[in-house]
Amino acid sequence: MSAPERFSINQMTVKQLSLPDLVEACGELGVSRVGLWREPVAEYGPEATAKLVRGAGLSVSTLCRGGFLTAADTAGRTRALEDNRAAIDEAVALGTDTLVLVCGGLPEGSRDGEALAAARGRIGEALAELVPYAAERGVRLAIEPLHPMFASDRCVVSTLDQALELAAPFPAETVGVTVDTYHLWWDDRVADDIARAGAEGRIHTFQLADWITPLPAGVLTGRGQIGDGCVDMRWFRERVDAAGYTGPIEVELFNDDLWARDGREVLAETVERFRAAI
Amino acid sequence: MSAPERFSINQMTVKQLSLPDLVEACGELGVSRVGLWREPVAEYGPEATAKLVRGAGLSVSTLCRGGFLTAADTAGRTRALEDNRAAIDEAVALGTDTLVLVCGGLPEGSRDGEALAAARGRIGEALAELVPYAAERGVRLAIEPLHPMFASDRCVVSTLDQALELAAPFPAETVGVTVDTYHLWWDDRVADDIARAGAEGRIHTFQLADWITPLPAGVLTGRGQIGDGCVDMRWFRERVDAAGYTGPIEVELFNDDLWARDGREVLAETVERFRAAI
Repeated sequence: MSAPERFSINQMTVKQLSLPDLVEACGELGVSRVGLWREPVAEYGPEATAKLVRGAGLSVSTLCRGGFLTAADTAGRTRALEDNRAAIDEAVALGTDTLVLVCGGLPEGSRDGEALAAARGRIGEALAELVPYAAERGVRLAIEPLHPMFASDRCVVSTLDQALELAAPFPAETVGVTVDTYHLWWDDRVADDIARAGAEGRIHTFQLADWITPLPAGVLTGRGQIGDGCVDMRWFRERVDAAGYTGPIEVELFNDDLWARDGREVLAETVERFRAAI
Repeated sequence: MSAPERFSINQMTVKQLSLPDLVEACGELGVSRVGLWREPVAEYGPEATAKLVRGAGLSVSTLCRGGFLTAADTAGRTRALEDNRAAIDEAVALGTDTLVLVCGGLPEGSRDGEALAAARGRIGEALAELVPYAAERGVRLAIEPLHPMFASDRCVVSTLDQALELAAPFPAETVGVTVDTYHLWWDDRVADDIARAGAEGRIHTFQLADWITPLPAGVLTGRGQIGDGCVDMRWFRERVDAAGYTGPIEVELFNDDLWARDGREVLAETVERFRAAI
């Protein structure tokens, strides 16, 4: 039985698999889509990755990730823009139209009641510089709101509402949002914001992970396997579908327990959990 | 130099100190207010605690905590109401007018797109039962929104807006909110919500802790010493003051590093940090 057509496996879910092993496992399980990360792609080589993935008939749903656009100093800002242009080029090379943006946390030592808003303002300015470059290359920037527990060190964009505000000045075909269940499930405005994102044509990717506790130290690797936590995946999928999104649904888990297991077994389990939950 | 008049030390900040040691240390540092927790109070005895604290001229800013009102079953609900009535009685015995409520997480196995809203609904129903009991005894219930990272296992009330919605049906002199910097600093609506809470007369207590990363496993004991993190305490204090709040400002830290140190030294440091930040 093939994996559901819209299912995409984000590479980080099974990061214990090399790219060739991942591609082979996808073939065995009938998985036709993968979300890739820049670091393992750089290690294997962007051209070699593109060739491997294309040769296996896989499509690349997203590239993770650009962003980190909150630097307050000129040098940091210049470096970030360069890095994001490189990420856009890599997306083109890999044949994906979607670059996920994790927009960055507060600069070191930032302590100001308006610091979060100011950092979001700098993201807006950086987007204005990146948008023409992305548009020319047909790459969509998908701003990802991260859970508020990441607001200081990883992403000052904590809600879909904030992501949509940042996207608003730009054409929807170039700047949109990432809807990720893990980051958004707690927000009582998320149903309305998904509808708004859909109406604006800005849902550029839809990612799944479950919310489980206790959270691990550092909280980054606490994303739960589908069905292990309290997130109603079907509830999200119905709202995202109703908002007009018809693209891939990517399962992206960072989880030490899953990484300690056999990667093929985790991939097969993830397909089954997806089928059951969605 | 005496501690600032509005400063209150929450007992958990220096939980390594016994109640008599805490009271003595407060005397030495000119601290005139303490926030107490039910468990150590029960251990020392509520009457003995009241006598000790009153004898030293200390006032009790808050009692932590009631709540956990989200049980979906009758037995769980009955137990929770009984426990909260007991907490109200303890508040009276200790001479404080404010009981902080941590309202509870999702019931075990709850997985439903509307589960958070349903749990908040049950909190509202439980409040309706508790309010007459609290009002007769002159105790105010201060609903505490907790950071969204606690939404599943500790508190389905994640924003000041949600806390105010829950409080809305009841008189402000009996049901209000806790403004805690740690839980609310990330929220782009918090300034407006503080103003609204003040206009409604519902700010019943104001607590401080700083946001530091990385978060520890379980994330409960990650509250940072004032000045160690990214929260602008003065920004919060100015808004809470402008909203008309004139009561105690309580420092409540759960932090393994602070607990491992000498409690008197931590208390002295906390007073100094408070003075510098506020």
